[in-house]
This record gives sequence, structure tokens and C-alpha cells, in this order.
Amino acid sequence: MISFNRVTIIGVGLIGGSLAKVLKDKNLAHKITGAGRSRGSLELALKLGVIDRMEQALSQAVEDADLVVLAAPVGAFERIVTEIGPRMKKGGILTDVGSVKGELVKTIEAILPAGVHYVPGHPIAGKEKHGVGEASGTLFLGAKCILTPTAKTDPQALQAVKAIWIAAGANVVLMDADAHDHIFAAVSHLPHAAAFAMVSTVAGFNAGPENYINFSGAGFRDFTRIAAGSPEMWRDVCLLNGKNIIDMIDRYEEALNRIKKAIRHQDAATLEKLFRSASELRRGLE
Amino acid sequence: MISFNRVTIIGVGLIGGSLAKVLKDKNLAHKITGAGRSRGSLELALKLGVIDRMEQALSQAVEDADLVVLAAPVGAFERIVTEIGPRMKKGGILTDVGSVKGELVKTIEAILPAGVHYVPGHPIAGKEKHGVGEASGTLFLGAKCILTPTAKTDPQALQAVKAIWIAAGANVVLMDADAHDHIFAAVSHLPHAAAFAMVSTVAGFNAGPENYINFSGAGFRDFTRIAAGSPEMWRDVCLLNGKNIIDMIDRYEEALNRIKKAIRHQDAATLEKLFRSASELRRGLE
Repeated sequence: MISFNRVTIIGVGLIGGSLAKVLKDKNLAHKITGAGRSRGSLELALKLGVIDRMEQALSQAVEDADLVVLAAPVGAFERIVTEIGPRMKKGGILTDVGSVKGELVKTIEAILPAGVHYVPGHPIAGKEKHGVGEASGTLFLGAKCILTPTAKTDPQALQAVKAIWIAAGANVVLMDADAHDHIFAAVSHLPHAAAFAMVSTVAGFNAGPENYINFSGAGFRDFTRIAAGSPEMWRDVCLLNGKNIIDMIDRYEEALNRIKKAIRHQDAATLEKLFRSASELRRGLE
Repeated sequence: MISFNRVTIIGVGLIGGSLAKVLKDKNLAHKITGAGRSRGSLELALKLGVIDRMEQALSQAVEDADLVVLAAPVGAFERIVTEIGPRMKKGGILTDVGSVKGELVKTIEAILPAGVHYVPGHPIAGKEKHGVGEASGTLFLGAKCILTPTAKTDPQALQAVKAIWIAAGANVVLMDADAHDHIFAAVSHLPHAAAFAMVSTVAGFNAGPENYINFSGAGFRDFTRIAAGSPEMWRDVCLLNGKNIIDMIDRYEEALNRIKKAIRHQDAATLEKLFRSASELRRGLE
């Protein structure tokens, strides 16, 4: 069984904190250091026993680390790796939990000095509530975790990171970084952009003193829940996976236009067919 | 307290069945007849004690009724009212629970013979599971119920229908039928059309043997849940409230285009602003 002497987690929130708990629960790490901008999160993580030590200065936090987990917002990855890369020890492993791969993986690989091994990762897990207070050693149980190794990825480092996620109970899937970004533009980034657009469309209307949203039922509330995600995170995701997201929004608008066209032609058969196929897909997922 | 001797409910599903339970629980009806196409639903309603009598022939079902509740799919309203109108007794009240008002109200008023009083209604309630087996006397507790009286509406009939919904624990809101259709195009019909479009967009892709949907997280699953609604019902809603829905889809596409434009220009500030405003709206709803 693989085990790390020192692990540093940069960004000890829901995901970083849950991974720290897994590492402790499964005896995969001897000592865990939490690092990051939010002093409050680190102090809470320390108090909860999720980490053993806190260190806000990134370069000091990674110095002795055998494994560094990047669990900060993806928009900060380039800056953080530029800062920590030269301070990591040779043979150390860097992995991440970011929801964008593609170009970002190439950028990180180009920054890191030789001898530091990077294994790009993305666990598909989360819940509505954020923060280390919500962290759980079972968050990844049964979830998919995507790893996107490249030609440069060290095979042993890949096996080590894979072993952690398997220990967490995740189903590890290996794929190309660009394929990852295309899939997640569709199943995650587009739905979030669509939810933001939906909420802003409907909130533009008032009926007397009441906003239209006050008349909404369960369906619309699902959209508002999706749209409640971190604005900074989704901004960064849009900037880093822009080409795929624009492509997906285009396709989505084509589907919306098919509905508009069928309504305009009062084409009952086409409408029912469109709605039935989506409804059946849902049933196939249950 | 108002009370009806004979009530007929056409379409004894989740909504019609729940209203029947309210009428019984609050002693607002002496005898309830269930009517509609689905023999199985009526037999179950009878077995569960939700109705006292079943009658599939609509014209016979409404003959003695003091109150007729139309809880069938909105697409069938015109046909049903044409059939039952001439058979309803003078002074009888017809109400409905349909999610479209506007033109449909005018159509129904034009069909009904003089002396039969129509009070258009729409309770904002529901749950994911359908059918009379899910009916509950508390379904409407705390929910809004919209009534859209017109210049032709009998004031006493309006008060009687209002009293039922108040007894059900609903908050009754009176508004114009066209205003209703504009609001519900925004908060209900657009989100459903958007969810159908989303599911059909994403389901168009496969990664190897796996459909992209297999990689989806919680956000996307909310869309698929919304898209699981009855294809026939949403077809009819789209046909009956088409103009408003097309207008809302147009506005929604404008919001999507603002996101695309900001991505294209790598405009971080605008993206964050768009996402933040939607996120804050959500918090305001909690």
C-alpha cells in the first residue's frame, strides 16, 4: 500500500478537506499540512483534525511535501504552481482536483521544473454546501474520479495518485485532458451557464411588487440552486474552457430553436417527440 | 362555511385527488364523483376513499354536480368543456387547475352555456411523483393558488372557489389571465423547455461506449429531473402559451449570448458580475 510521509493540501475546503480525511482515515499520510489564503478555513481544519499543521506561505508549505494537492480555485492554479514549483522537492508529486484540464495541464507542465511529477485529476463530487466544515471521508465513495495523464506523466506518480482515489472509494477513469474538457463543458459547465442565464432572465420581471421568482415552483428552484455556485469559480471555468463552452451553448441554442420552431408551427407531434426523448433519457438514468 | 352537495372531479391524479381529499377532510363536499379516461386511476381513487363514486362517461358524471373541477391535462380542456357544458346544471360552478389561462379562459367562457359559472384557477403545487396514490390533503398547504376571474365571472362563484383554496391552506392570489400566462411562461414553462433542450443537447454525445450523461454531477441531474415531466402536458402548455414561451426563450438566448460574448472577449469582470447577480438572487430566496 502506498503511503506519503508529508502531504500538503492547498485550499482546504469541501474537496481538499474531504481528501485530507481520506488520507488520514486510510493511513495514507503521516503528516498533513493545510495551506491557502483563508486563515479561517485553515484554523477550522486544524481544529477539526482534518490537517495537522497550517502554513499560509505556500513556498514554505510545500518544501518537504512528498505530495501536494492543489484544491484551490482553478483560476489560481497557474499563479500557485509558478510560486510552488521551484520550492517542491525532486521526486515530489503534484496533483489537483480542478474541473478544467486541457490547456491548463499543458501550462502547469511547462511551469514545473524537471523532477516534480504532475498528475492531473478531477473528482466528480460535491454538495451544495461548501467549506471544510462539510468535509467527509465518504464524499468520493462511488464517485467518478478522472485522471488525465499526458506523455510526460511519470507512471509511478500516476499509480500513486490512482491508489489514493481508489482508497477514497472512487471509480478512477483515465482520459485525455481535451476529451475531459469537452465532456465537462457539456455535463457541467453548460448547465451552470444555463442556470445563471435562466435566473437572470426571470429575475428581470416583476408583477406589481413581487418578483416573478416568487411565483416559481420546484422546477425553477432547481435552476436557482445550480446558479448559487461560486461566481469566481464559474468565471474561471468559463475563461479556461471557453471554446468548448461556447460550442455547447451554440448547440443548446439550436435545441431551444427547435422547440421555438415547433411552437411557431403549432407542431404538436414534434413537440411531443422532443419532450418524450428527454423524458425517457431521464428514466434511463434512474 | 361553504359546502357543496355534489362535486365531480375530472382527472383524479395528484392534483385532482389532493383537492378531493381537502374537500373531504374539511367537510366541504357531501359526495365526490371521480371522472376521466383512466379507469385504473378512478378505481384506485375509489379504493383509497378519495372519491365516493366513479363515472367514466363525462356527461353523466357532471349531471348533478354543484361543482365540477377540471383537473385533466390542459390540452383536453376545450374538448371536455364542449362535452360537459350543456350537461351541467344551471347555477353549477366549473373551476380548473390548469397551468395555462389566457386565451384558454376565453375559449372556455365562450363554450359554456349561460348560467354555468366558470372560475379559472391554478394551484402552484406538485411533486415529482404523479398519480392519485401520491395525493395528499396537505399538498396545497402554504402554496400559492392563482385565480384569474374575468368581467364575466360570477362574484359568488369566485368567493366559493376561493373559500375551497383557503380551506386547503393555500394563499389565494387574484390576477389577470394574461398576466398569469406571462409569469408562468417565465417561472415554469421556460425552465421546462430549457431542461428538455439541455438533456437533448448533452445526450447527443458519447465518450467511447459511455454517454456523456454518465459523467454528470448533481447540477445536470436537476435538469434531467425537470425534463422528466409529462411530454403530453408540456406539449399542450407549449401549444397553448406559445407566444409567451417563444418570447421568454428569446430573452433567455439573449442572456446566454451575453455569457458567450464575455467568454469570447475573455472578460472576467463581466462574467463574474453576471454569475454573482444570479448567485445573490438565489440567496435572497432562501
